[in-house]
Amino acid sequence: MTLVLSNDDVENLLTMPDCIEALETAYKDLAVGRGITRQRSDCIAPTSYSDEAIYGLKSMDGVVPALGVGAIRINSDIVTNPRIGNTQRRVKIPAAPGNRYVGLVLLFSTANGEPLAIFPDGVLQHIRVGATNGLGVKYMARKDASVMGLLGSGWQAETQLTAAAAVRDIKEVRVFSPTRENCEAFAKRMAETTGIDVRAVEHPEDAVRGADIAMCGSNSIDPIFFKDWMEPGMHVSSIKKPEVEPDAILAADRVAVHTHDTSPILVVAEGAPFKEEAKEKGWNAAKSLDFSKYPTIAELIIGRGTGREKDEEITCFLNNLGLGFQFAAAGSVIYKRAVERGVGHELPTDWFTETVHP
Amino acid sequence: MTLVLSNDDVENLLTMPDCIEALETAYKDLAVGRGITRQRSDCIAPTSYSDEAIYGLKSMDGVVPALGVGAIRINSDIVTNPRIGNTQRRVKIPAAPGNRYVGLVLLFSTANGEPLAIFPDGVLQHIRVGATNGLGVKYMARKDASVMGLLGSGWQAETQLTAAAAVRDIKEVRVFSPTRENCEAFAKRMAETTGIDVRAVEHPEDAVRGADIAMCGSNSIDPIFFKDWMEPGMHVSSIKKPEVEPDAILAADRVAVHTHDTSPILVVAEGAPFKEEAKEKGWNAAKSLDFSKYPTIAELIIGRGTGREKDEEITCFLNNLGLGFQFAAAGSVIYKRAVERGVGHELPTDWFTETVHP
Repeated sequence: MTLVLSNDDVENLLTMPDCIEALETAYKDLAVGRGITRQRSDCIAPTSYSDEAIYGLKSMDGVVPALGVGAIRINSDIVTNPRIGNTQRRVKIPAAPGNRYVGLVLLFSTANGEPLAIFPDGVLQHIRVGATNGLGVKYMARKDASVMGLLGSGWQAETQLTAAAAVRDIKEVRVFSPTRENCEAFAKRMAETTGIDVRAVEHPEDAVRGADIAMCGSNSIDPIFFKDWMEPGMHVSSIKKPEVEPDAILAADRVAVHTHDTSPILVVAEGAPFKEEAKEKGWNAAKSLDFSKYPTIAELIIGRGTGREKDEEITCFLNNLGLGFQFAAAGSVIYKRAVERGVGHELPTDWFTETVHP
Repeated sequence: MTLVLSNDDVENLLTMPDCIEALETAYKDLAVGRGITRQRSDCIAPTSYSDEAIYGLKSMDGVVPALGVGAIRINSDIVTNPRIGNTQRRVKIPAAPGNRYVGLVLLFSTANGEPLAIFPDGVLQHIRVGATNGLGVKYMARKDASVMGLLGSGWQAETQLTAAAAVRDIKEVRVFSPTRENCEAFAKRMAETTGIDVRAVEHPEDAVRGADIAMCGSNSIDPIFFKDWMEPGMHVSSIKKPEVEPDAILAADRVAVHTHDTSPILVVAEGAPFKEEAKEKGWNAAKSLDFSKYPTIAELIIGRGTGREKDEEITCFLNNLGLGFQFAAAGSVIYKRAVERGVGHELPTDWFTETVHP
């Protein structure tokens, strides 16, 4: 049987600690070159949705021999680039029937090639980002870290919080985001679900001052964490490159990154109103930043490179780029749990396999 | 609804003339850069299937704005490399439950991103190769070509024959393949299904001598068509690079290729007993062969480059590499016909879309 799972299924089946554990196992494979991942590719074309929109067919994949799975993640997106204020924003439109997005993960067995499961990527996309930064905390933050400053109050912030709490005994979280109302609602909700003392604060400095762990979990394309805010013993973490000011990265005692992989393969059609995203605003100035010189989280996990040696060191983990590999690693847990619990729509595997030699 | 179709469905829904027409439309998009295609990627990893086998997760994709579709083709393969005689062969093992192969095409709408259909790649894989060479015949062979020499009697040979017959009034086919019995069975079957005079011959020279069209449709990794066999007015065609001796290509008056795309992206894991295939045996010697200087079939279709100017010219079409783009183009026809005829398993599109922002 091939399982078709929903985002709700994924949410119920995959806990943050499970995801962190699966990634940790998988990264050991990756670090020694036994696990592999293929850089994302983006095919960008015109769409009849509107003259200003683009159609994007994106994919990334990876194989985790240690877990016996391979996975491909596919996105089929309608994207617009509205100007909001002075900034060009990139907005994904839920244009599929029922106002829905299209993102899928297909999970395969490396033992016999069979398609094990198909599920949407949304929930896992969120969890795997958090889990990755959770590993950053596990291998780089002080063992006794208990106070967290959190910048952002969206879904990224939520998984950053739960991931950190999965690897450290977090007792206090101070969260800042620009819209006070969102920030307070987030703090209230997270306090309830985690049992941790989560409080909204008025300024970002109030969040990070004196924190053992400062985590960025925003959708900002500008820096939101600055060198001046660094304190001895702090662990700083970002979910994408621009969040932490380059000078702050340079000032850290130890830096690690998610991956040394390069940018996606980009294939852009004539006539597609594609605007290169201003993703790395202010970033290109920091020429001194050569990511390839920093160890990856996978290397830290197998002890090649050191996350932290002394309590007073300032550490910094940059979750610079996602990997298809992560969907395979976490997918293996989702599939295992789904089978154990009898969750999902079971479709005949014959529908997705063939007797004709391909 | 998202349609799940079978190979049988695809075979019933997609005729060779329809596939040729869809590719022709799509290649017009491709030639002007509006249609796009992403080179194949191969992730090669160890498998528990056996120590000698490898697991391959392969994908290619493309978007055809003119047809309103994008597609990704995925293969999840168990592959062994047995030595047969003096040659290392590459053998795909049908290791999935029920002794089946795993190859899938996912078709998406560029209008709203929705997943339109999922179907196995096997039958389409065969038809699209034939259809591509059919376009080679259409744009390069003499208008009055009627006699065909065919080298090979497997599925590749079958679609070569039906493709040529779809674009020229083929009256006689002489077919050669090394195993006489297979060759005769093929000739008998094809004569019955096409109504054409198809005859098995004893030597390859008997097949191609005096033929208007000489088509290679073999699984050979060595040349099977030679310069000495060329005659004025002939159109020579191959389904992969090694079939036609490099000297023969150099001797042709006009040469066209399927694509200028480069080799697949190859990501090989440590510990995978991967053997670079001897795909291009004897080929690397022919340094003078620069494929980028030959027009592509897409360019010929829009009149950029000339397929044939005079009856006495010798033309040569090399179907050098497949494209994910082809699966989108042909997929659009399969989907359209399936909807018209109510074929396939209808699954809720909601299963493959999401409300969570990916």
